[in-house]
Amino acid sequence: MKNYAVDAEKLENFTQRLFRTAGLSDADASAVAELLVHADLRNVRSHGVLRVAPYLDKIEHGGASLRSTYPVVHETPVSAVIDAEGGLGAVAGTKAVKIAREKAQKAGMALVAVRNGNHFGMAGHWAMKLAGEDCIGFACSTTDLTMGAPGSREPFLGNNPFAFAVKAGDKYPEFCVDMATSTVAMGKCKDLAKRGKAIPSGWMLDKDGNDTTDLSKCYMMTTMAGHKGFGIALVVELFSTFLAGGVLSPDINNQDLPDVPELSSQAFGCIRISAFRDLTEFQKSAEEYIDRLHKLPMREGMPAARYPGEIEYGNKQINRREGVVLPETLVRDLIEIGAKHGVDGSFLKQRETDRQ
Amino acid sequence: MKNYAVDAEKLENFTQRLFRTAGLSDADASAVAELLVHADLRNVRSHGVLRVAPYLDKIEHGGASLRSTYPVVHETPVSAVIDAEGGLGAVAGTKAVKIAREKAQKAGMALVAVRNGNHFGMAGHWAMKLAGEDCIGFACSTTDLTMGAPGSREPFLGNNPFAFAVKAGDKYPEFCVDMATSTVAMGKCKDLAKRGKAIPSGWMLDKDGNDTTDLSKCYMMTTMAGHKGFGIALVVELFSTFLAGGVLSPDINNQDLPDVPELSSQAFGCIRISAFRDLTEFQKSAEEYIDRLHKLPMREGMPAARYPGEIEYGNKQINRREGVVLPETLVRDLIEIGAKHGVDGSFLKQRETDRQ
Repeated sequence: MKNYAVDAEKLENFTQRLFRTAGLSDADASAVAELLVHADLRNVRSHGVLRVAPYLDKIEHGGASLRSTYPVVHETPVSAVIDAEGGLGAVAGTKAVKIAREKAQKAGMALVAVRNGNHFGMAGHWAMKLAGEDCIGFACSTTDLTMGAPGSREPFLGNNPFAFAVKAGDKYPEFCVDMATSTVAMGKCKDLAKRGKAIPSGWMLDKDGNDTTDLSKCYMMTTMAGHKGFGIALVVELFSTFLAGGVLSPDINNQDLPDVPELSSQAFGCIRISAFRDLTEFQKSAEEYIDRLHKLPMREGMPAARYPGEIEYGNKQINRREGVVLPETLVRDLIEIGAKHGVDGSFLKQRETDRQ
Repeated sequence: MKNYAVDAEKLENFTQRLFRTAGLSDADASAVAELLVHADLRNVRSHGVLRVAPYLDKIEHGGASLRSTYPVVHETPVSAVIDAEGGLGAVAGTKAVKIAREKAQKAGMALVAVRNGNHFGMAGHWAMKLAGEDCIGFACSTTDLTMGAPGSREPFLGNNPFAFAVKAGDKYPEFCVDMATSTVAMGKCKDLAKRGKAIPSGWMLDKDGNDTTDLSKCYMMTTMAGHKGFGIALVVELFSTFLAGGVLSPDINNQDLPDVPELSSQAFGCIRISAFRDLTEFQKSAEEYIDRLHKLPMREGMPAARYPGEIEYGNKQINRREGVVLPETLVRDLIEIGAKHGVDGSFLKQRETDRQ
């Protein structure tokens, strides 16, 4: 398949314009565009502009409300609960980050929980925004039903993702632990499906709760590390749904339905490092730690040990310079969507690339 | 091997007296005894009174300081850093819990980091104390070197455990997610070793960083779920070592050395639920959630799905009633230690049991 290299700034601008024509304010459209293009910059493509079409679809069919005002329904100097009222994850997230950072600047730490939300995209995006230069950032979300308890035949929650981020000195500005609590991301399964490949044993379960490698029989995902991953997914539920007073995971709607909101919950946390110790000293020791990690002796043939987010940070540098790689099919879809909304997408096809 | 059923209160009293004769204050000795016997009550035996001997040994040889005053070296209304000065994990933990809970009662949330500590025992003990009736409790600790980065030949950190706890209504007072970030707990490997059994593939690595099932070749543990577990272990490092300004994990001392402190770091967090929503409503929805989890349809032959900590909570009810089960060898050791310190341990051998 042909690939195109697309300038990230132009792509973000194009995406922003699409969402403006769909009825979002300038600021809200920018929040969505920034979220999606950031994922593509880090090569987390499952959460990139691939989502433009389903997001727009959801807005058009009412599943993502444009009338939501994202009210703060409860608040203290260290906490807030936002009711997203079925609005957009990127908009709720942007508001939650702003509140959490402001509160953490004053109080030392803060946690903002969101209920009745929609897909909030790449968790690491939010953790990094929360972290800024001076904080530890933390974000998590419930998602639609894809996982059960170990041994169950029916799903009970989503593969609840979470992320922690911090600037670990100037050398490592984007230390970012970002994962879903399933054995693998759903995107990986879909990718194998597209390429007609079987799924490795241990990843997916059939309708009877048994291991399956047959794509047509996949019904649920396994939790990462068995009971441990299930426990961590429940911690996400605790911080998001339970604190926000949101919809319990078994009642969340499938995110692909265009006419109803997912009703997922999120949490956004912020810890100001200077509430504990001198920020410069913190970053010096974090940097030293990663320097030492890089020198760890490796098994024959293995590349140097990497800190969480290192690969994605490297991707971002390359993609900023050389453009984000988009497959031909996606470029075609985006140009078509642009045409429908009167936004010119011809720049997307300007530069073919051999990069993958 | 013969087992004995031992009354938990008597065991705690006995343990407390042992640590008093070793030089601890009444309160500090109680903190240690409560921590160890709580682990036995939950059948987390690797962290129970099995540790009396090494803890006493460490005190006697100076590895656990009795001179530490556990000073608070930095403080805000939501944060504190304690320097354990090589003192006991149970004492530092008790102080950290008190401070975190007091601050969270006032401010809505708090995090207390501890540096230069020793083994802090079962993480869930601290999370549950932090949680109380009205908070989410969180505790984590670095530990001595047992894990590397995926693919490495040398360890870089311990299997950094963490725990989250909350009361989920009167029916489920001890919801508690508690795990180490290795594939399995070291105790499980030691247990297999004792029984002369091989270790399953995927658990342990040899000196070259390769998978091994041969006990004599075990050198490091694997991280749970590969890179994901490594990432989570680093989050523990971030919250404990980095915030506390503690000793970086690669420089931590082996916990079995009697004459030097481990110099591990910990973090103790507390989030007051009423800073987000009505506590009664919170507990009602958490209880409903677990009720529904219990009704999840299971794969043939599988028991009902359980919430994290359910098995341990059940163990605690049984052991409170019928006594904690201790093996003959451990009972003999404890009686001997008691005799050395002038504390009568004959009650330990009063009641043989078939329970395991």
